[in-house]
Amino acid sequence: MNRYKCTISYDGTQFSGYQIQPNKRTVQSEFERVLQGMHKGEHVKIVASGRTDATVHATGQVVHFDSYLLIPVDKWKRALNSMLPDDIRVRTVELAKPDFHARFDVKAKEYRYRLLISNDPCVFKRHYTHYYPYPLNLSAMREAAKYLLGTHDFTSFCASNTEVQDKVRTIYDIAIDRHNDELVISFVGNGFLYNMVRILVGTLLEVGNGQKEPVSIKSILSGKDRTLAGKTAPGYGLYLSQVFYEEWKKEESKKM
Amino acid sequence: MNRYKCTISYDGTQFSGYQIQPNKRTVQSEFERVLQGMHKGEHVKIVASGRTDATVHATGQVVHFDSYLLIPVDKWKRALNSMLPDDIRVRTVELAKPDFHARFDVKAKEYRYRLLISNDPCVFKRHYTHYYPYPLNLSAMREAAKYLLGTHDFTSFCASNTEVQDKVRTIYDIAIDRHNDELVISFVGNGFLYNMVRILVGTLLEVGNGQKEPVSIKSILSGKDRTLAGKTAPGYGLYLSQVFYEEWKKEESKKM
Repeated sequence: MNRYKCTISYDGTQFSGYQIQPNKRTVQSEFERVLQGMHKGEHVKIVASGRTDATVHATGQVVHFDSYLLIPVDKWKRALNSMLPDDIRVRTVELAKPDFHARFDVKAKEYRYRLLISNDPCVFKRHYTHYYPYPLNLSAMREAAKYLLGTHDFTSFCASNTEVQDKVRTIYDIAIDRHNDELVISFVGNGFLYNMVRILVGTLLEVGNGQKEPVSIKSILSGKDRTLAGKTAPGYGLYLSQVFYEEWKKEESKKM
Repeated sequence: MNRYKCTISYDGTQFSGYQIQPNKRTVQSEFERVLQGMHKGEHVKIVASGRTDATVHATGQVVHFDSYLLIPVDKWKRALNSMLPDDIRVRTVELAKPDFHARFDVKAKEYRYRLLISNDPCVFKRHYTHYYPYPLNLSAMREAAKYLLGTHDFTSFCASNTEVQDKVRTIYDIAIDRHNDELVISFVGNGFLYNMVRILVGTLLEVGNGQKEPVSIKSILSGKDRTLAGKTAPGYGLYLSQVFYEEWKKEESKKM
């Protein structure tokens, strides 16, 4: 029995999120269906670094699974891609240590959020960016981002229906970069609560458009109340871009 | 009654092409449905510069229609976009001369074809590029393109089931440009036959991969036989990018 670690990308548009749900098309169910076909009908569970919601994309999600198949590690990628639907692609397959765990071993994750800031919307980006054609004060947004860095209780930035008890997380880095007609906001942290990146983005937008002051981030954090933060930005602008299994260092984030 | 000229873009992925067909979702039917709603149920026909096939995209299709509505010309764009599905966007609306005709007045058209030439496919580009991960000799392709320039009988580059009699067309320009992991082939001509751009691309690919010599274009043209040319490249890589109603000059082609 070998344990494999796969880095995968998916277009979230036509998925009801990552995790299996009855009668829904999910990334996990499509992937496990392919593995089941390869293992004579036997169910093979995959474990991901974490869930992603409906319409959320991934360029660097990581999953692990175990298999007794005698496929050389360099043939797995092609074998899986030949059977997976074309909105999921395996980027790399590695032989992992038997105790590697795609979720428990995560040291850091990077999410990116793409905003289309052109005057006109773009039909080709409607599933891949959040269209935001309003003026944004980037320096105010960057100032606000500084208050988010470090270790905080992120209760105000977490969907109120979550069951997680410990809402303390550490954000290592936030970058706000303009690429032509897009604004890309990247977050690296040791973990993110349910909807946290989307609420962070929604709040930074309210700072950028002048509804909130950068310094208000301090009172939003200390207030521990979801209603203090901004709206939840739509899922289709969000990308799980990298999962780190070593301590994160700034130079390790790659360009998307 | 005013005549309006609209430049529109659409994502062809979920359309059975531009032209109305019974029980199919087409660009024309969606657009006319919106106009009908605005005109108290009265049918308003739109006329395009030409059809595009299923899955083919447009960044600069042009259509005209007539309306008695007293909407100022600068309000039409917003009015139409508020009712159109989000895979069609109106880019500009102008008041046209009463005898302007979106098809008959065309002087030239530009099509672009996007090839994804990276080692790995990309889930986000699967509907927007033709994935072609094989080595391509660009200078051979550019040499072949030179033989296509000018006025020729393009019977060999036309789907054999077409009804058009006159297959003489003039190609003014072909550009083959690499943009990061994409190769974009642009064609400007006074008109294009059914599937002509896709067959031109398929043939240029066969030159690029060494199956055909650049000079073979001469005998393919003179043979006037569809079977001499290359395969028809898939529709989803193709974009109608500009329609010209003035004589085309090289500097008029804009970057996509």
